Amino acid sequence: MITLAVDCMGGDHGPSVTLPACRQFLSTHPEARLLLVGLPDAFAGWQAHERAEIVPCSEVVTMDDPVEVALRRKKDSSMRVAIQQVKEGKAQVAVSAGNTGALMAVSRYLLKTMDGIDRPAIATQLPNEKGAATTVLDLGANVDCQPEHLLQFAVMGSALVSALRAQNTEPSVGLLNIGEEAIKGNEVIKRTGELLRSANEANAIHFVGNVEGNDIFKGGVDIVVCDGFVGNVALKSSEGVASMIVGGLKTEFKRNIFTKFAAILAYPVLKALMKRMDHRRYNGAALLGLRGLVFKSHGSADRTGYEHALNRAYDAVRNNLLDRVQGRIAQTAPVLESAASAAAHGDTVA
Amino acid sequence: MITLAVDCMGGDHGPSVTLPACRQFLSTHPEARLLLVGLPDAFAGWQAHERAEIVPCSEVVTMDDPVEVALRRKKDSSMRVAIQQVKEGKAQVAVSAGNTGALMAVSRYLLKTMDGIDRPAIATQLPNEKGAATTVLDLGANVDCQPEHLLQFAVMGSALVSALRAQNTEPSVGLLNIGEEAIKGNEVIKRTGELLRSANEANAIHFVGNVEGNDIFKGGVDIVVCDGFVGNVALKSSEGVASMIVGGLKTEFKRNIFTKFAAILAYPVLKALMKRMDHRRYNGAALLGLRGLVFKSHGSADRTGYEHALNRAYDAVRNNLLDRVQGRIAQTAPVLESAASAAAHGDTVA
Repeated sequence: MITLAVDCMGGDHGPSVTLPACRQFLSTHPEARLLLVGLPDAFAGWQAHERAEIVPCSEVVTMDDPVEVALRRKKDSSMRVAIQQVKEGKAQVAVSAGNTGALMAVSRYLLKTMDGIDRPAIATQLPNEKGAATTVLDLGANVDCQPEHLLQFAVMGSALVSALRAQNTEPSVGLLNIGEEAIKGNEVIKRTGELLRSANEANAIHFVGNVEGNDIFKGGVDIVVCDGFVGNVALKSSEGVASMIVGGLKTEFKRNIFTKFAAILAYPVLKALMKRMDHRRYNGAALLGLRGLVFKSHGSADRTGYEHALNRAYDAVRNNLLDRVQGRIAQTAPVLESAASAAAHGDTVA
Repeated sequence: MITLAVDCMGGDHGPSVTLPACRQFLSTHPEARLLLVGLPDAFAGWQAHERAEIVPCSEVVTMDDPVEVALRRKKDSSMRVAIQQVKEGKAQVAVSAGNTGALMAVSRYLLKTMDGIDRPAIATQLPNEKGAATTVLDLGANVDCQPEHLLQFAVMGSALVSALRAQNTEPSVGLLNIGEEAIKGNEVIKRTGELLRSANEANAIHFVGNVEGNDIFKGGVDIVVCDGFVGNVALKSSEGVASMIVGGLKTEFKRNIFTKFAAILAYPVLKALMKRMDHRRYNGAALLGLRGLVFKSHGSADRTGYEHALNRAYDAVRNNLLDRVQGRIAQTAPVLESAASAAAHGDTVA
């Protein structure tokens, strides 16, 4: 039996999305139990389920709450109580669609980071041209990264992808850069490239070299590593273009009676395209590097999207993601140590 | 009379695109003269024009040539000879579709940077939802930027946009960040925000605050400032998504006889959409901060695209872009000086 603690209040829609998703999830996962954390009122319409237990709380972290409020003032929030279940061993993973900054801060405060990890990261999936998903990390949590941090992201991302995918091959890792040649990029990226090559030689990861922004969507590599600033810009820019194109399509199809007629005929085609690129299928970002599992759903996720996040969290527990991350980090320790001593040496020389 | 020096050999297509574009440009610009730089053979089919003069050269910088080759070995390349015309005052601007790194290096070597500019930048235009273009800089030239550099980009971008646009209003500048709040971002970005606010108070630019990746395509701001690494990732990620969506549309419309029929009816709509987002209309990136004007066309530009780059270069000369950049940089000098002394003060304190 695997137990998930669900922050039922988080996200743009709260219980109206999370509770139906939880019920659907329970029906497809007979080995799962849920701890439903929320304000008592939220469960007014909830029909009892033998594998679901309500854990009442008295506060909610809003999407606009600053990190400090979530961390210091709302100590009985649904988000915090859900993570507390993981800390106390009552659940193996927590799932929330709440505000990312708050979720990371509270998770980090309650669960602490793993040995050998300086900074936890957020790994998300983006759809690619091959009809699969590319895992990108970090997304938003770490804005000033050193090469060691980026190496840790590569290692944790590899553990995540190998835990969650069907085939038993080692996932490939690319370093987000502005060109494929090893001499490209800023100083941090060049030194990161060296570290990743060393980790590849030590068989800790399968590093394939530099990739560029468009490679995220080409699907030639399983994992793309970058700092949280660059990752956020790549994600938001991509969303901006996609929404410009979709908006443009809508405007053009609505232009006159002929284009509206064309829209009716093109509708099944456009629907198939949307399905192929449906980000809901890839919902559920992992917070990696903590002494407990936390998954983050998109704030705007609908029932289907939220259910996918629950599925991913469940699979992560079932496939021992926590042990895998810890094991791989231990395996990378010699690479990091030799890098640290090389850096210290470099400092004295410089 | 305005004279443009054209590197006829540059780009993926070379003279087969550049020469027809030049002829078309001459027909619409009776006040323009062209210096056509290229290998003698390239002009075999060229019919003489009273306002075009052929400047022969013996070498060509290829798209794969490393910067060193362009700079040190190919001293009689069409790219270099075109820029040399600007240096010698024979032309007021050079246009090339050649390899970006080489073009920047050769331009910088021959023309030198302006007083008060540490690093030249490349400013490009991206189509936005409002049917206009957002100017983004830097794109690829500077990967490790300090706040002073980003301020200079903001100032040069403002000079560019105000020189090239019809309305006589001050263009708005946004700083690319991972959130709108001033406390977001890495250390360089936070300090840049402070500098940009000071420059705004000194009326050197019209700074509106932080913007995110998607704002590039929303069109709420005229200029988006970022370092070359982040700018390159934003640009490439956007291209990746756009090409995934267009590729997906093609696949879905080709799926069967019904979808092919739908494609025929939807074709005018899709064509209108493509026209609206046609990047060719925005072709022609400016190299800013040099003691002479250089414009860069996309390597893959077709005749229409290349002609747009020539138009933009012509307009930049006509509207005194060089003087405008120099004037604004002088106006910003006090802001930079007080920032430099504050930084020096900070260093001694730290």
